[in-house]
Amino acid sequence: MSRFSAENLTLPEHVTIVEVGPRDGLQNEGAVSTDSKVALINALSQTGLTRIEAGAFVSAKRVPQMADSLAVFEQIHRSLGVQYSALTPNMQGFQAAVSAQVDHVAVFASCSEGFSQHNIHCSIAESLERFQPVIAQAKQLNIPVRGYLSTVIDCPYDGATPPSQVASIASALYQLGCFEISLGDTIGTGTPRKVATMLDTVMKRVPCEHLAVHFHDTYGQAIANIYQSLLMGINTIDSSVAGLGGCPYAPGASGNVASEDVVYLCQGLAIETGVDLDLLIQTGWQISRQLNKQPNSKVSFARKP
Amino acid sequence: MSRFSAENLTLPEHVTIVEVGPRDGLQNEGAVSTDSKVALINALSQTGLTRIEAGAFVSAKRVPQMADSLAVFEQIHRSLGVQYSALTPNMQGFQAAVSAQVDHVAVFASCSEGFSQHNIHCSIAESLERFQPVIAQAKQLNIPVRGYLSTVIDCPYDGATPPSQVASIASALYQLGCFEISLGDTIGTGTPRKVATMLDTVMKRVPCEHLAVHFHDTYGQAIANIYQSLLMGINTIDSSVAGLGGCPYAPGASGNVASEDVVYLCQGLAIETGVDLDLLIQTGWQISRQLNKQPNSKVSFARKP
Repeated sequence: MSRFSAENLTLPEHVTIVEVGPRDGLQNEGAVSTDSKVALINALSQTGLTRIEAGAFVSAKRVPQMADSLAVFEQIHRSLGVQYSALTPNMQGFQAAVSAQVDHVAVFASCSEGFSQHNIHCSIAESLERFQPVIAQAKQLNIPVRGYLSTVIDCPYDGATPPSQVASIASALYQLGCFEISLGDTIGTGTPRKVATMLDTVMKRVPCEHLAVHFHDTYGQAIANIYQSLLMGINTIDSSVAGLGGCPYAPGASGNVASEDVVYLCQGLAIETGVDLDLLIQTGWQISRQLNKQPNSKVSFARKP
Repeated sequence: MSRFSAENLTLPEHVTIVEVGPRDGLQNEGAVSTDSKVALINALSQTGLTRIEAGAFVSAKRVPQMADSLAVFEQIHRSLGVQYSALTPNMQGFQAAVSAQVDHVAVFASCSEGFSQHNIHCSIAESLERFQPVIAQAKQLNIPVRGYLSTVIDCPYDGATPPSQVASIASALYQLGCFEISLGDTIGTGTPRKVATMLDTVMKRVPCEHLAVHFHDTYGQAIANIYQSLLMGINTIDSSVAGLGGCPYAPGASGNVASEDVVYLCQGLAIETGVDLDLLIQTGWQISRQLNKQPNSKVSFARKP
């Protein structure tokens, strides 16, 4: 009997899906009206999802797609049991998020200096310093802070990211007070063994239950990487309805893994997500029609409504 | 340290890719000229692939796409070290394959009565009987016979396939003399734990080194299922360049997993395939252009030539 026989596969009983489509997804798509965003978030709220990243309080000049986040938070119908989060890279953003009554906030750092400079225009150390007052203030107001880490496998500028580097920045964010660190394979180059090595190293510094994984499907490996992560005990998975959000580093290529495909995987593995897959598929087709594109989800085509 | 930590992952050192695009793929695409098929097979022969399914000697009335298989075999340039195979469901087909100097032949059976009746218009038992003279004659001529098994996870007509049924038909084909049984998830509904259960059961009857897996990516799970199979020791993988071949059971959905994505997975897992990924990607774009469609491979977009 193989060590990897069905009876030896240890998998979580429950997985929490963090739906990032309305923010991470739409930030990388064409312009979408506030009404459409509100309708998307309201529809997602009916699917059984419990965590939805709904906006970002960032520079409207640099990220015009998220300029209406306050209006979005004001207009959505908040479902009981759903937590709505937003990115807040600095104190200004955090204060805006507080007035928008955001449930969770999130800060984001990179594991590679090259990506940090290109993406947020400062060094990794500077970014961590900038988060300190945000996290301290959030703690006082009892608002949980998520920490996003990008380029946990490879960086488009610096090449392969050493797992020890990921572990040390993840640990820094955790020590600062983030309740959860989302490990992002930003350019989607990861494969399961590299993911395992990275997770092994990070888990020595941050407890598994405080980690989430965030895979991009650029090379078609996201579902396999999620499966490997589940085998290692990860039970929080980021994904994007209809695979919203392309890949800025490879035009035409896929970005975020589709929530539909992740929920399908979990169902097949007898892992509870609480999500109604049919409703999720419908929601994905709706927003895709508005964007004048097709869902970037295989399950959405296999089970076209 | 988790049982599924990087250092505990046992994976094969070498994997053989069986390229099924020119047959299984093109059989389910629009019309392609003999010249294009020959060019495709010749290009694939330069990529380092060692096994290519190049045609089928079947009823030209039922499968007009394969009516020119004899011409294809006559015109291709055979590369040293590459084995070219063809489907031969009966003695007539087998004799045609012999005159075409095919290196391997293949027979195909179903694991579910519903699919057997719909696909090859006879019961499973009748199909096995029909293969007996083919396999016997092939043995005399020293031509290896592959056995394809469809619906190893689910059947579009009969629902879930019992793993014991897969094991018993796989074993029957093996006993008849097939050197290799290719286990096909025809409608792509499999997920890794179901795949593990099926493989556990089949491996009790047929040695692992005589098994191949053949996944369809209809639900986006093929790469994860292949990864699970690799963990269990499978080292022969069927795939189709550019993901050629749709899914007849869900129009617009994916069929065969793309060879490019499988080779990328293997590279990331440090598994040798002998395949030049860049040449494979180029070949996939070429045939896709001729079919007036885009490759159904994520890697092909991420690394667009």
